[in-house]
Parts: sequence; structure tokens; C-alpha cells
Amino acid sequence: MAAQSGIVLFGHGARDARWAEPFERLAQKLRDACGPVTPVSLAFLELMSPDLPTAIAQQVAAGCTVVAVVPVFVGVGGHIRRDLPTVLDRCRAAHPGVEIRCAAPVGEDEAVLDALARYSLRQIEGE
Amino acid sequence: MAAQSGIVLFGHGARDARWAEPFERLAQKLRDACGPVTPVSLAFLELMSPDLPTAIAQQVAAGCTVVAVVPVFVGVGGHIRRDLPTVLDRCRAAHPGVEIRCAAPVGEDEAVLDALARYSLRQIEGE
Repeated sequence: MAAQSGIVLFGHGARDARWAEPFERLAQKLRDACGPVTPVSLAFLELMSPDLPTAIAQQVAAGCTVVAVVPVFVGVGGHIRRDLPTVLDRCRAAHPGVEIRCAAPVGEDEAVLDALARYSLRQIEGE
Repeated sequence: MAAQSGIVLFGHGARDARWAEPFERLAQKLRDACGPVTPVSLAFLELMSPDLPTAIAQQVAAGCTVVAVVPVFVGVGGHIRRDLPTVLDRCRAAHPGVEIRCAAPVGEDEAVLDALARYSLRQIEGE
């Protein structure tokens, strides 16, 4: 049987519900690109739900045998370096038949940084 | 006299000094693209220095007549919606001859979201 993959976009979370709007837009872009066979979920470190174990369990329940977690954090501090590996280890122990991957945080990707640089440059262009 | 522009990349800040590394890489990309005539600085909301008023004052002292602030936040919550405009108003009052612009947060830019989507898709490719 072919692997069925899902994507979990993992963000910090905040009190203001509108905080998650860019994450929702990103998730929709991925759904448009992947089609219905690949579930795309959001998960949050704090202040919003679901948390990461819940989002992963939902994708496993939906039949995923591979879950790719993408930390949507530009800066990489203690939350990602220290807390996230511990949470992922617990998730792997809870779902031993599932491959739970974790990408490098988005701020480490050269193409993402290039997009951020182009956006920043546009703010002083045309003078 | 032509306007001299500077860019301030505004991030949240964190306790771990390594948190700012992607911001440093982004600033260096901008310096490489702009050349020495355009200062590019980092500024932080909390836990790291300089803060935004200090970074803007330094660019004004260096001769900038336009300062473009780029909030490097994907999610947009109370910090950006409520606190940042107040800080910017104080900065504008302190530097009345300077145009202090503020970009939309990076998470609202379509091209940035597209780059995040491509990065996320790469995590499940090749299966």
C-alpha cells in the first residue's frame, strides 16, 4: 500500500483569533496544490487549538502513514529547539506505525528568506 | 536632495540569541542587494535589543529621510495590530522630518505565502 501523507503546519498561536489567518491562507494554498487525498491541518504551541498531538492523531485517524510537521516559525528559539522534539517523541511513541517527520523551521529555508527579502525591498522601491 | 532610505526588520525577539539568526541572514541578503547606501537594521519587540525606537533613531542619525519598517511576523495579533501603531506614532513625533513607513506583516504577502507553501510541499514530495 502506498504511503498516505499529511501536512501539519505548526505555529505559535496567540489570543487574537485573527492571528491565524495567514496560516489558514497557507493551508488553503496547500490543499489547492495537493488535492483532497492529502490532509493539511494547523496546530499550535499555545493559546490556540488543536495542539500538535491532537492534529497528528487526527491525521493518523484519517489514514495517514506519513505526517510531515512544518514549523512555521521564522526565529528558532527554545520552543522549537527544546520543546518540539519532546512533543514529537511522544507522538511517535503514540503512533508507532506512522512516520512523523519534522521539517526545519521555515526561517532556515533559503527560498523563504529570498521571498522575505524581495518583499522587504519592495517597501523602498520606486524612489 | 534625494531621499535616503533605510529598512528596519522588526521581529518579536526571544531569550535564545540564536533565535535571531534567520533575521541576521535576511538583513545580510538585503545589504547585499541594496549596497552600503541603504542601512538595514534589526529591531525587536521584546527580549532582544535594539527596540524599534532605537533602531529608527540610529537610521535617522545616519541620514535616512525615509525609514521602512517591515514586521517579520507571519501571524498578526495584538502586538502588531495594537502596540506597533502606538510605537510608530511616537517615533514619527520624535522625528518629524522623516517619513516612517510600516509595511504589512510578511504573512500577508502572497509571494511570501507561496514560498512557505512550496517549502511545505517539498516535505512530502518524492513518495
